[in-house]
Amino acid sequence: MKVYLHDIPLDEARARFDQALRAANLSGRLGEEELPLDEDLLGRVLARAIWAKISSPHYHAAAMDGFAVRAGDTVGAMPNTPLVLSIGSDSVYVDTGDAIPAWADAVIPIENVEPLGGGGVVQDPRRPEAVRIRSSVTPWSHIRPMGEDIVATQLVLPAGQQLRPVDLGAIAASGSISVWVARKPRVSVIPTGNELVSMGSDLMAGDIIEYNSLVLSAQVRAWGGDVIRFPIAPDDFSAITAVVKEAAGKSDLILLNAGSSAGSEDYSARVIEELGDLLVHGVAVRPGHPVIIGMVHQDDDPSQADSSRVRYVPIIGVPGYPVSAALTGEIFVEPLIKRWLGLRPVEPIVISAHLTRKITSPPGDDDYVRVAIGRVGEKILAAPLSRGAGVITSLVRADGLAILPRGSQGLPAGSEVQVRLYRSTAEIDRTILAVGSHDIALDLLAQHLAGYDRRLASANVGSLGGLVAIKRGETHLAGSHLLDPQTGEYNLSYIHQYLPGRGLRVISLVKRQQGLLVAPGNPKGVQGLADLGREEIQFVNRQRGAGTRVLLDYHLDREGIVASRIRGYNQEEYTHLAVAAAVASGRADCGLGIAAAAQALGLDFIALYEERYDLVIPVEYYESDLLGPLLEILADPQFRHEVALLPGYDPGCMGGLIAELP
Amino acid sequence: MKVYLHDIPLDEARARFDQALRAANLSGRLGEEELPLDEDLLGRVLARAIWAKISSPHYHAAAMDGFAVRAGDTVGAMPNTPLVLSIGSDSVYVDTGDAIPAWADAVIPIENVEPLGGGGVVQDPRRPEAVRIRSSVTPWSHIRPMGEDIVATQLVLPAGQQLRPVDLGAIAASGSISVWVARKPRVSVIPTGNELVSMGSDLMAGDIIEYNSLVLSAQVRAWGGDVIRFPIAPDDFSAITAVVKEAAGKSDLILLNAGSSAGSEDYSARVIEELGDLLVHGVAVRPGHPVIIGMVHQDDDPSQADSSRVRYVPIIGVPGYPVSAALTGEIFVEPLIKRWLGLRPVEPIVISAHLTRKITSPPGDDDYVRVAIGRVGEKILAAPLSRGAGVITSLVRADGLAILPRGSQGLPAGSEVQVRLYRSTAEIDRTILAVGSHDIALDLLAQHLAGYDRRLASANVGSLGGLVAIKRGETHLAGSHLLDPQTGEYNLSYIHQYLPGRGLRVISLVKRQQGLLVAPGNPKGVQGLADLGREEIQFVNRQRGAGTRVLLDYHLDREGIVASRIRGYNQEEYTHLAVAAAVASGRADCGLGIAAAAQALGLDFIALYEERYDLVIPVEYYESDLLGPLLEILADPQFRHEVALLPGYDPGCMGGLIAELP
Repeated sequence: MKVYLHDIPLDEARARFDQALRAANLSGRLGEEELPLDEDLLGRVLARAIWAKISSPHYHAAAMDGFAVRAGDTVGAMPNTPLVLSIGSDSVYVDTGDAIPAWADAVIPIENVEPLGGGGVVQDPRRPEAVRIRSSVTPWSHIRPMGEDIVATQLVLPAGQQLRPVDLGAIAASGSISVWVARKPRVSVIPTGNELVSMGSDLMAGDIIEYNSLVLSAQVRAWGGDVIRFPIAPDDFSAITAVVKEAAGKSDLILLNAGSSAGSEDYSARVIEELGDLLVHGVAVRPGHPVIIGMVHQDDDPSQADSSRVRYVPIIGVPGYPVSAALTGEIFVEPLIKRWLGLRPVEPIVISAHLTRKITSPPGDDDYVRVAIGRVGEKILAAPLSRGAGVITSLVRADGLAILPRGSQGLPAGSEVQVRLYRSTAEIDRTILAVGSHDIALDLLAQHLAGYDRRLASANVGSLGGLVAIKRGETHLAGSHLLDPQTGEYNLSYIHQYLPGRGLRVISLVKRQQGLLVAPGNPKGVQGLADLGREEIQFVNRQRGAGTRVLLDYHLDREGIVASRIRGYNQEEYTHLAVAAAVASGRADCGLGIAAAAQALGLDFIALYEERYDLVIPVEYYESDLLGPLLEILADPQFRHEVALLPGYDPGCMGGLIAELP
Repeated sequence: MKVYLHDIPLDEARARFDQALRAANLSGRLGEEELPLDEDLLGRVLARAIWAKISSPHYHAAAMDGFAVRAGDTVGAMPNTPLVLSIGSDSVYVDTGDAIPAWADAVIPIENVEPLGGGGVVQDPRRPEAVRIRSSVTPWSHIRPMGEDIVATQLVLPAGQQLRPVDLGAIAASGSISVWVARKPRVSVIPTGNELVSMGSDLMAGDIIEYNSLVLSAQVRAWGGDVIRFPIAPDDFSAITAVVKEAAGKSDLILLNAGSSAGSEDYSARVIEELGDLLVHGVAVRPGHPVIIGMVHQDDDPSQADSSRVRYVPIIGVPGYPVSAALTGEIFVEPLIKRWLGLRPVEPIVISAHLTRKITSPPGDDDYVRVAIGRVGEKILAAPLSRGAGVITSLVRADGLAILPRGSQGLPAGSEVQVRLYRSTAEIDRTILAVGSHDIALDLLAQHLAGYDRRLASANVGSLGGLVAIKRGETHLAGSHLLDPQTGEYNLSYIHQYLPGRGLRVISLVKRQQGLLVAPGNPKGVQGLADLGREEIQFVNRQRGAGTRVLLDYHLDREGIVASRIRGYNQEEYTHLAVAAAVASGRADCGLGIAAAAQALGLDFIALYEERYDLVIPVEYYESDLLGPLLEILADPQFRHEVALLPGYDPGCMGGLIAELP
């Protein structure tokens, strides 16, 4: 059976895979092994139920330090008519946990008896000659009867239990010294590709650091499997065939990374056809679609005459883009490992959230959109992160996944989506959402907030975007540096225009220098905005609404420079660092930005203007417990010191109240 | 400073411990170590933030397979006015991920070009002599610009991040090959006590299997520490002192198990006073109160002349009862390890639930009550489990902890409590609560249900208790075998009396034999109920309301036997197995129960009656998805077969509809 790259729906891909696994008798638990009851069992899965071999306690045990007695002997003891029990035949001292003598059926705690000596003071209250008691006891008081905890033969733990520390105690208490647990699936991870280089190599353009195998291996271990991580195989049909054959002999599952598309060097599908069955080539999942699923046939023991003894080893061709690779792990590998261990699939916590901006989605695909989540007032918001399959930081920053099913062409801003959470709701409840203009001091603030049990999640949409987010109730604060061309003042006139009547506090964070970022040595001799009109200058701009964009347009206007004459004026980036990266890469000759961004990438900086960067905070959040630590940090000398070290930064105004709008 | 056993409030104990840790400079992260970026980092905690060393991509990369071109060269290309670009100077084939030539600024996907050969058909569309295009492209289309994912110098991950698989990818992508992570705390676990024996030993009365060190070690590992597990030390002052000194030299924290009370063989406090400071002896926490906290002083390097170099090693004297020990771990050890790792304390999920029965609580203690949790309709219920500090199965079965603070004397049934969950709410949503009479077939049912994604949580309160729980809306079903003395019928008349008008289905589960459980060989020659009145016969009864109790009273009445003349009539147990255990241990000579319980503990069984055991199910749960699998299993031949193997069990009636009450 040959199948060429043709995306099929996820459900169909799963069904084909399931069917092949069932046919190969690989759809249930993989196997079991008996292990001694020691600490390495944590997280292992019981393959067989634990039935109690002994009772616990396995004898009648004293529950307190005191004297074992016959309850019948104590009848009639009263405060004014005490009884005396002699030691030996009628009472005996027992420590907690000691066995009760066969003739006894109760324990009197030591503090409830009067120890009697040979007419004098008793040295050790545990070794008297007799004891006087002033109340009776009922049978079985202060005794832990045999089987109080566990009765021999009872079910202690069912098969399928994933072992926790207390489970180990119960197993030991019930008399077992070993357990049968599910064998760990062995997973081979094989990176392939001529463009791949190992971590730590000197990098040339076109080299890609191989780290998908690191992520896939860690995923497999986190899910309960063992990993065999292979070295990088070159793009060569016979080399890949040989390594897949070797892996099939050693493992239960093979992850063959990249080469899964239909490009000139994509050998995965051909290798699988060579060694077994190609079941699926392409799944309509975004990101991730060039997924391959197959089944390698492996002679169990080639020396055996019986050639019908074939082992089947499932193989997944994992796409090369890192987000695609990691999501392929979550979608296909995790459920298989759980099933092989006898565990139910993990159930993510799912919440409803409102999209902060629209998503467009290819209608043919299940679309896995990474989102940041924050709770602003009563509203839970999902801010879509970068959609790029190559942007691993979108998975690192993701608080969850919004899955847009096949058939959906996308969703408008404000619509409700179901989000599978990667974090607990408690973490989300202490997340401060900062939507607006980006500033490096915010990164430092995020670092410091971590020490105060707060997370700062920033969405960089420019200063105006931040004010709009406040208007919509979609952020706890907005970073803003909007110059009013009329007054020369920052932010206030915009706030009055966009947020009339809104209760707000405006707090200054820093003053910082804006200027032109140019290549080291300033090869094109850029001195100011006047140079942007020159034919040979390629500019890179910030997006409409960003404070830096307003600053640029204001000064272009004052200097009489026509925007349409600037090459690259329409080439927009969303952060200062992205502008710097564009200049550093040679993609542009200059851009307007902050000194810190120039320094970060080793660029030259031509200082032009100083501007104030404020935090605009709705009054209800200004006074909230959530934001309290943030305001505290603004007064922290250590934080101010670190900000002052940033190039072109002046924290002198930090924390100052610019405006108090009721 | 000497402190004798005197319970202090938990907050005060924590404060003393914190103060001592601060004084010893042990209240923050313990240390850090640099480790290579490989799979063993999963779950480790970053001690230093990761800042990007390189951008990712570190060059402009093709985002598709296609031809790299100058966007400017494509202007004017239209469907009817195509342009031709020659290969080499004006266009060049690139695979996804390849670097774009310095002169190019866009990629045209291969499917959007017409490959041209030397006047003929092109064999390989990637190696034409020229390409024809019929539309223009904008600059930077289908290119992943340098820094799209990560910009050099940006913050990739903050310190304190607990590493997940995708984090490892982001670290590698940003050019690091190693990370600084928090050093794992080393924890010594020392079991002490002459009564302790190793797992697998032959047991004598009074022997206690040592498994607390197994549980504590597994806890420490689960929380991120390394463990040194010591062999059992005898109750001997100098032996314990020596091993604690040895442990102090090897570890950051010592857990000294048992000997923490004030009994004759409790040396922990004296050992700690000998080696350092005793800070706390007794914490008002139940279970767990004889907790000791201290600080051992350890010469850092005895060969050093400078004797002021003293290391401080905190030591916790952990109580001996297994539930106390495990909770002491959760209360004192987990937060310390997390702090040493630079992690926030774990935040349990807390839910509100209604108590199914009252709890009494000592007003001086914080009381940790283990509860089973179930959702019945809209109501979340918390059923208190065994309160005994020796009952480790109460922790194994617990779905959560209800903490009754100091000052509370308890709570009435039905009151709302806050419960810290051990399980996810999803697990609780698929839990079937069965409150009522116990039956061994229910244990088997629980085993089978696990394969259907359901949990069965049983609370054994007797048949009548089950009907009352249905009345209160506190169970999904009730197991019942209530004989009506008037009619000789089971259950129905009680249902009409207790649940008039309630929509119910009554389904028979099994018929089973009831009889007298006696010691092997029936040494006292018991033949029937008439023998219970004999002077030398000690009986053990079931609790009021249990079906077996009703059966007993019915037949006592018929045979004219006076209950008050039966020794042990008031000695009540709550399950068949507990009755059997009482007989097996010699605590009683006989009790009424089922054959299976006799066989389980190797007792003889004198069959007297056959009875029917039914499941009473409110109609809304009978028809629910939750209970669907349970009803399916009743029709499963494999399940019926296993039930038939139980002694005295007849599954012939299983699943039969006894009554349909609208």
